[in-house]
Amino acid sequence: MDDETKDLREHLATISDLRAAGGVLSWDRQTYMPPGGVEARAGQIATLSRLAHELLASPKTERLIEAAGEPEPDSDTEALVRIARRDHERAVKLPTRLVEESSRVSALSEPAWKQARETSDWNSLIPHMERVLELRREVAARLSNGHPYDALLDLYEPGTTSSRLQTMFDEIKTATLPLVRNIATLPDDERDAPLRGAFDEASQERFGRATASAFGYDWRRGRLDRAAHPFCIDFGSPGDVRMTTRFDPKRFAVAFFATCHETGHALYEQGINPAYARTPLSGGVSMGIHESQSRLWENLVARSRPFWSHFLPSLKEVFPREFGDLDLNTFHRAVNTVRPSPIRTEADELTYNLHILIRFELEMALFEDGLSVKDLPDAWNAKTEEYLGFTPESAATGILQDIHWPAGYFGYFPMYSVGNVLSVQLFEAATQEHPIIHEEMENGEFGTLLDWLRRNVHHAGSKHDPQDLIQASTGRAMDTTPYLNYLKTKFTDLYNLGGS
Amino acid sequence: MDDETKDLREHLATISDLRAAGGVLSWDRQTYMPPGGVEARAGQIATLSRLAHELLASPKTERLIEAAGEPEPDSDTEALVRIARRDHERAVKLPTRLVEESSRVSALSEPAWKQARETSDWNSLIPHMERVLELRREVAARLSNGHPYDALLDLYEPGTTSSRLQTMFDEIKTATLPLVRNIATLPDDERDAPLRGAFDEASQERFGRATASAFGYDWRRGRLDRAAHPFCIDFGSPGDVRMTTRFDPKRFAVAFFATCHETGHALYEQGINPAYARTPLSGGVSMGIHESQSRLWENLVARSRPFWSHFLPSLKEVFPREFGDLDLNTFHRAVNTVRPSPIRTEADELTYNLHILIRFELEMALFEDGLSVKDLPDAWNAKTEEYLGFTPESAATGILQDIHWPAGYFGYFPMYSVGNVLSVQLFEAATQEHPIIHEEMENGEFGTLLDWLRRNVHHAGSKHDPQDLIQASTGRAMDTTPYLNYLKTKFTDLYNLGGS
Repeated sequence: MDDETKDLREHLATISDLRAAGGVLSWDRQTYMPPGGVEARAGQIATLSRLAHELLASPKTERLIEAAGEPEPDSDTEALVRIARRDHERAVKLPTRLVEESSRVSALSEPAWKQARETSDWNSLIPHMERVLELRREVAARLSNGHPYDALLDLYEPGTTSSRLQTMFDEIKTATLPLVRNIATLPDDERDAPLRGAFDEASQERFGRATASAFGYDWRRGRLDRAAHPFCIDFGSPGDVRMTTRFDPKRFAVAFFATCHETGHALYEQGINPAYARTPLSGGVSMGIHESQSRLWENLVARSRPFWSHFLPSLKEVFPREFGDLDLNTFHRAVNTVRPSPIRTEADELTYNLHILIRFELEMALFEDGLSVKDLPDAWNAKTEEYLGFTPESAATGILQDIHWPAGYFGYFPMYSVGNVLSVQLFEAATQEHPIIHEEMENGEFGTLLDWLRRNVHHAGSKHDPQDLIQASTGRAMDTTPYLNYLKTKFTDLYNLGGS
Repeated sequence: MDDETKDLREHLATISDLRAAGGVLSWDRQTYMPPGGVEARAGQIATLSRLAHELLASPKTERLIEAAGEPEPDSDTEALVRIARRDHERAVKLPTRLVEESSRVSALSEPAWKQARETSDWNSLIPHMERVLELRREVAARLSNGHPYDALLDLYEPGTTSSRLQTMFDEIKTATLPLVRNIATLPDDERDAPLRGAFDEASQERFGRATASAFGYDWRRGRLDRAAHPFCIDFGSPGDVRMTTRFDPKRFAVAFFATCHETGHALYEQGINPAYARTPLSGGVSMGIHESQSRLWENLVARSRPFWSHFLPSLKEVFPREFGDLDLNTFHRAVNTVRPSPIRTEADELTYNLHILIRFELEMALFEDGLSVKDLPDAWNAKTEEYLGFTPESAATGILQDIHWPAGYFGYFPMYSVGNVLSVQLFEAATQEHPIIHEEMENGEFGTLLDWLRRNVHHAGSKHDPQDLIQASTGRAMDTTPYLNYLKTKFTDLYNLGGS
């Protein structure tokens, strides 16, 4: 980066530092903060958010962007200026009051959600949800040109629209609903029974950490802690990228796959060009690409047969009583059991997208059709009945299961399905270029895969447009075909549906 | 507080939030941050420090202070305006560049100190120390009217001067050096031998936590973690006041008394009027008063006979092998063993002030006489020889033992002795008003003592001038007499020096 942008870069570093500080305060709130800190912390996070917004929206930002002139095309500086301009233009549309209030309301709403989920009490969350939704609707209205929900989607996946997502979900639905229903007609063989038992938390954690290490997570640049909702967070540099997870002492799969998922996010952030630290080029480029990384490691790797052919023996050493007698096929089938179930994060690969579809359609209803918070639980239950075939037993295992809505992250959920689609598209591109990846996985090695991802996805940070990144790394635009073929092949095989 | 100051209060809340955020980032750096975060974190903390400084020094602050008019004398608003004005006037004397650079250099210097202490390598710290000192000298020069060191002292204890401290140290020296030397002539009876052994860390922690609870520490508004250097920190409100400690598996006293000490600080912060949150009235008024609270609980309470008459039985249950056979007198003598030793934080009450005296005289030399970083270790060793009678075996147990200098806290150390003096003055005032405190302590109860401290010291936060606070709560100005009488009586008795 050159000297004409020195002042711009310093200015953007200040904004990045304020956001990073907000990130640390948020991480702390979700991991170690005592209950007495809730009120003051909400104020602190709101202040940081307001100051970052004021700086970004300020005439000074515009002046420094103008002063940067016309940087060399495709250079880092060009990307820096382009993204700074996009963020600035977005920021000037949002009054400071709205940004600060949104931040404060989310910070207060999250602990209220935690409490509500513990007691399965949706009603206690209603006032929070109404306020959160009101503020998000205002944000959407101010950013949009007629399609408020699209404006929110654009925040998480630049360039995405609800109509494009609708097409994607239609394709997914067409391909997977018959499979799910087909499997549902089979007698339930309880193939996931071995995953239930008594799993010592410390042993679970040890195995999860060992897996993250094997994937390539660098512990000198991160850590793993406990939180009510697993997440990954960075603070504006690849030097400190943290994960959280949660443990269920009765079910092995919960923490293990959550840890693999968060490791996928963390490998992305740890792999970003360190020169982008404290600039808008740091951080993953979009939520869809981010989820492609988490889902790739969680599903394409950690739910694969090659993976367990290597790791099952060491898992047996950790839990000899639970897993000592299991053979590879039985275990592989267990971790890929298809069964409509209430919790999204614990869903199998086939029903997972149906959970997302429910949320996508409800978000459309909330932002395009004026669905109210009051009517949300009934709508939730109806959609769950429609797509998953049951009504949630409680709010805790239904509408209260995710932190996203109380935190104000409307428009985020669909990116999990975008991530699923892209995860296979990227994995196939990587393995086509390096067939040895399959063999390495059988040996518990992931170097070639990680290296491919580093070069084709991670290193560039936010430099490229997400569509361009996918085009460049896979040779085509986002395409559901590889993903749907993968699902069909995998589950037809696992459930012996060959004759259908 | 009234409406004329609404804008001022909001402005000051923003500054408070920035400082609180800096506090959280600092706490995190010292407890959980992975090594890869060092560089970016230094930048983030410096940015927060710079923005807080810019806001405080801004003409807007002056305008809002002027707009507040003449608040009612002795009201909270009057104190708010008075302290805001003092802080503003101080801030305008310091260029932003100096504040940001100081913060950044300290943030980088602290991990370097940690590393240097681990390897006992003073040389590796020299470049950091030179930069830290250079910046502190500039701060002192800009704030002072001829006595740079006094300007630094004033940051920690408003109104204190080096000549007043010199008098205090002369009185302490005159009274305690003969006692220390007298005891040194006695054959060493190794009365502290029972405190050495093998002390399981988890059990140490459990007992420390139980003691903090008994003192009145509220765990819903705080937590205890591990750090290289024990400290207590608040984030602008009494709702989240955290402590750290460190454990020595071979010596019981290290973590236990450090935890009692930090609990004293934490009780102060937790006891401050919650209405002062996010204002300059939050936080303890001065370091001397703060240390009076930590030393009161550490020494007047936790090294007292009444305290152990209640707690020794439960300590015996925790460590039956180490302490099972000990009687109260032996144990009480053990935790009050007088012996010149290298580490300040582990020093007995008599030699403790000699450690401080060494640092006070060296700080005077650094800031008034131009002593260089290069010559500091020799000067350190010479002073240690002069006052404690030995030369430190290594830099780690000598000049590298404390974080204060690498962090830039010059002028802080003397306040430990001020705190010692005030701790006895306050404790005597409390017990004179409520003799029942002695009896309660024998029952493991501290309610009356804590209540007296809450009303007379804690609740007011930073509202009153520290000298006024001491005058009001004890009926006189700071006076070494009670403290020196306490030391003389206690150790004459413990060492049977009655005939001398």
